[in-house]
Amino acid sequence: MALRLDEIVARFGGEIVGAGDTVISRIGTLEGAEPGDLAFLANPRYRHQLATTRAAAVIMAPPVADGPAAAILTPQPYLYYARVAQWLNPVPVPAPGVHPSAVVEGDVAPSASIGPNVWVGPGSTIGGQVVIAANCSIGEGVEIGAGTRLASNVAIYSGSRLGERCLVHSGAVIGADGFGFAREADGAWVKIPQVGRVLIGNDVEIGAGTTIDRGALGDTMIGDGVKLDNQIQVGHNVRIGAHTAMAGCVGIAGSAVIGARCTVGGGAVILGHLNIADDVNVSAGTLVTKSIAGAGTYSGAVPFLEHGDWLKNFSRLRHLDAMADKIRALEQRLAALEKN
Amino acid sequence: MALRLDEIVARFGGEIVGAGDTVISRIGTLEGAEPGDLAFLANPRYRHQLATTRAAAVIMAPPVADGPAAAILTPQPYLYYARVAQWLNPVPVPAPGVHPSAVVEGDVAPSASIGPNVWVGPGSTIGGQVVIAANCSIGEGVEIGAGTRLASNVAIYSGSRLGERCLVHSGAVIGADGFGFAREADGAWVKIPQVGRVLIGNDVEIGAGTTIDRGALGDTMIGDGVKLDNQIQVGHNVRIGAHTAMAGCVGIAGSAVIGARCTVGGGAVILGHLNIADDVNVSAGTLVTKSIAGAGTYSGAVPFLEHGDWLKNFSRLRHLDAMADKIRALEQRLAALEKN
Amino acid sequence: MALRLDEIVARFGGEIVGAGDTVISRIGTLEGAEPGDLAFLANPRYRHQLATTRAAAVIMAPPVADGPAAAILTPQPYLYYARVAQWLNPVPVPAPGVHPSAVVEGDVAPSASIGPNVWVGPGSTIGGQVVIAANCSIGEGVEIGAGTRLASNVAIYSGSRLGERCLVHSGAVIGADGFGFAREADGAWVKIPQVGRVLIGNDVEIGAGTTIDRGALGDTMIGDGVKLDNQIQVGHNVRIGAHTAMAGCVGIAGSAVIGARCTVGGGAVILGHLNIADDVNVSAGTLVTKSIAGAGTYSGAVPFLEHGDWLKNFSRLRHLDAMADKIRALEQRLAALEKN
Repeated sequence: MALRLDEIVARFGGEIVGAGDTVISRIGTLEGAEPGDLAFLANPRYRHQLATTRAAAVIMAPPVADGPAAAILTPQPYLYYARVAQWLNPVPVPAPGVHPSAVVEGDVAPSASIGPNVWVGPGSTIGGQVVIAANCSIGEGVEIGAGTRLASNVAIYSGSRLGERCLVHSGAVIGADGFGFAREADGAWVKIPQVGRVLIGNDVEIGAGTTIDRGALGDTMIGDGVKLDNQIQVGHNVRIGAHTAMAGCVGIAGSAVIGARCTVGGGAVILGHLNIADDVNVSAGTLVTKSIAGAGTYSGAVPFLEHGDWLKNFSRLRHLDAMADKIRALEQRLAALEKN
Repeated sequence: MALRLDEIVARFGGEIVGAGDTVISRIGTLEGAEPGDLAFLANPRYRHQLATTRAAAVIMAPPVADGPAAAILTPQPYLYYARVAQWLNPVPVPAPGVHPSAVVEGDVAPSASIGPNVWVGPGSTIGGQVVIAANCSIGEGVEIGAGTRLASNVAIYSGSRLGERCLVHSGAVIGADGFGFAREADGAWVKIPQVGRVLIGNDVEIGAGTTIDRGALGDTMIGDGVKLDNQIQVGHNVRIGAHTAMAGCVGIAGSAVIGARCTVGGGAVILGHLNIADDVNVSAGTLVTKSIAGAGTYSGAVPFLEHGDWLKNFSRLRHLDAMADKIRALEQRLAALEKN
Repeated sequence: MALRLDEIVARFGGEIVGAGDTVISRIGTLEGAEPGDLAFLANPRYRHQLATTRAAAVIMAPPVADGPAAAILTPQPYLYYARVAQWLNPVPVPAPGVHPSAVVEGDVAPSASIGPNVWVGPGSTIGGQVVIAANCSIGEGVEIGAGTRLASNVAIYSGSRLGERCLVHSGAVIGADGFGFAREADGAWVKIPQVGRVLIGNDVEIGAGTTIDRGALGDTMIGDGVKLDNQIQVGHNVRIGAHTAMAGCVGIAGSAVIGARCTVGGGAVILGHLNIADDVNVSAGTLVTKSIAGAGTYSGAVPFLEHGDWLKNFSRLRHLDAMADKIRALEQRLAALEKN
């Protein structure tokens, strides 16, 4: 695929500086671009790389800088880069049809593509242009909307519903039982049947190894446009609002309700039965132990130190209360002295 | 399925308030119940919902409250709900037999059900009423006890043993090599062969994406009735006592020995070669760095704050030792002043 | 398999104490060894077990101790044990060939072994002596070097390259999309196509459920001899230097560059776009939030406490800044008093 700058601008807007007939065929970073590449400057700290980049053209915010032979000026170069990159790298569409090794007991649209050794359970409905790659297992009564793509080795339990244009990565598990048990007097656990479903909206991306449990009573719900990175755990009856994005290794305990347009940093944990407002940002490594009522950024990770400094400082954490007591005592004694 | 309250009480005990011939067909929450549902009041903070619930009847502890048309009184409503819910939602039993696409080289009981594209390795023994769903891989010489169920896409390595009535969720991996290496002078690692097994008791539940490594020498052992949530990592030679339950994303390093009836909160990490007593509760997000000799609750997570407050307060952690020194110096100077 | 001590020493060096014709057939721990076993003493804290071990011989560092009937003296007993254990426990080699249920569209060396229900995509190249176990999915254009072994249910995306003699455990996912999105004004996310690859060196071990994302632009690179435990997440464009080892549940965000011969403890998280020097040790549970320029050990986890003590002490974290202010005020008031 090869595109001229003026073709790109005709489609996505922006202003060309230099030759509109410059042809590019690939996206590259400022530093790694080769001649013929289109690079982008999204983070001002890389501005100095404009002077030395070999890119044929650069997407950047005004004002234009010396260096590249050509440029596309736009107020949002990263978003612009995303769109051009999508145009240059169309998602490959496998031939429609069911591979002879697949076991299909449900209803598959003729335009869908079902890969080798896939199982589709009875009562399932697979929409148009859906792609299900090798070794996926789709339980009974699952609905998968048009244009959704499952990478290989995905497991979807019975009754789950996925919207349109979703992307689910390998090793993801959707609809396993939530973790619910009552306890007998002797400590043994009695399983609570998990009879709810997982309902996933449109344009959702689910990362490799991410697990989303079905509801206990009622459903687990993932809103439109939600993006979940790898190895995220979503407990039963969680609700996640539209366009919320979570980085890898996040854990969400059961019945947490998370707002729209939130971001959650890697390794954060959100406890159960909490409410998180819209537009909340949780920093990486934070344990959220109570509800958050207002938009904003919330953090709770500790700094790291060279090991010896860590030993010296962090062992004091066991004695913070005593330190506070000592300060109070000092204040009282000092006040007594000052009085005299 | 539909049950009368007097049928339920005949089976599970408790006292009926209202009409014993009330028919229910589903369990619901107090808030979400529809007419014909049986709800339950397990957490006193939802008591006010009794006044408005549409449930036909409510399981609750005495005393009975106004609101619902009928009730079952029991001292442990959550446990009671679990049992009724199990009765109302029997686990579906697939037809016995081996799917023609499965590759079975081991010994499968006639009453077992082996799904599409499953592999069962030579020398394996699959017990009666076992269910193995699509795309599972069972290595050589594996033993799976009667009534155990594997969801789709589970991987079990050679030599593992699972007891009876276990439930293993998709993406779980049982019996992979433990992480054991010796180091050469130049930093290169030499693998320690992992020749132990994984031995799992009866009535164990293993969550989606949970991994349990085989022993290095000797075996990794999971006791009867243990419940492991999703994405838990259990290192080689770990032993977990009966009826211990762990929430999602917990990590247990090699050779940790964990007692019976413990609970471990989400995202907690237990380091290796530790001993944890029976009846220990570890809070979510806690890093357990040394053995715990007595029952009780142990915690180690930090609070989260609005980001600005976090910056101001948590940066002090690098200087706690200096703060303690300053307090000591103040105490000495103050004592000197007081002496004069 | 049975070996005489003098055969072992002829191969690996060391000095025999006792009868060189002592025959051993298995490795055991000092405590668990049975007659006929070879045990080892690597950790001095188990030295007292020499007196009571039933092992036929013990690998240990000089000086020899009373107790065992025979010994092999070597300066590095753990490394020696690793080598003897490998000799005693050769990795089983499955018969070469492609299982009839596998779907192979790529190029497989005649000496490779492809298990049941495996899919190998078009354009892939599978080297000699490679083992791919049941239900693995290998995308298009993947290259797998000679002697590499994949356990069951591994997913490898298109374009990934694995070196020679690697070992990949079940549930691992290599080459899924990195987590990259640009944001529109209304909060919706626009996907950045992830067009890089995953390049993995020789002698790499990848644990169960570990996920390694492909590069966005450019490649994710794992150096020779790297050892990754279970459930590790490696983001796009990460580079990991040779012989670095990471324990379970570690998360590495995108574009982090990690040096050679590092160790990372369980549950640690390394944020994105950081540089970690060679020979850095990160302790378990540490969140690495900035680059580390020099070799050494770095820590950042908090101690755990009995719950009541934790409540008392850790709640003070919200007020550390106020405590520091109080200390400063006390110092000033005290200085004023001392002046008078």
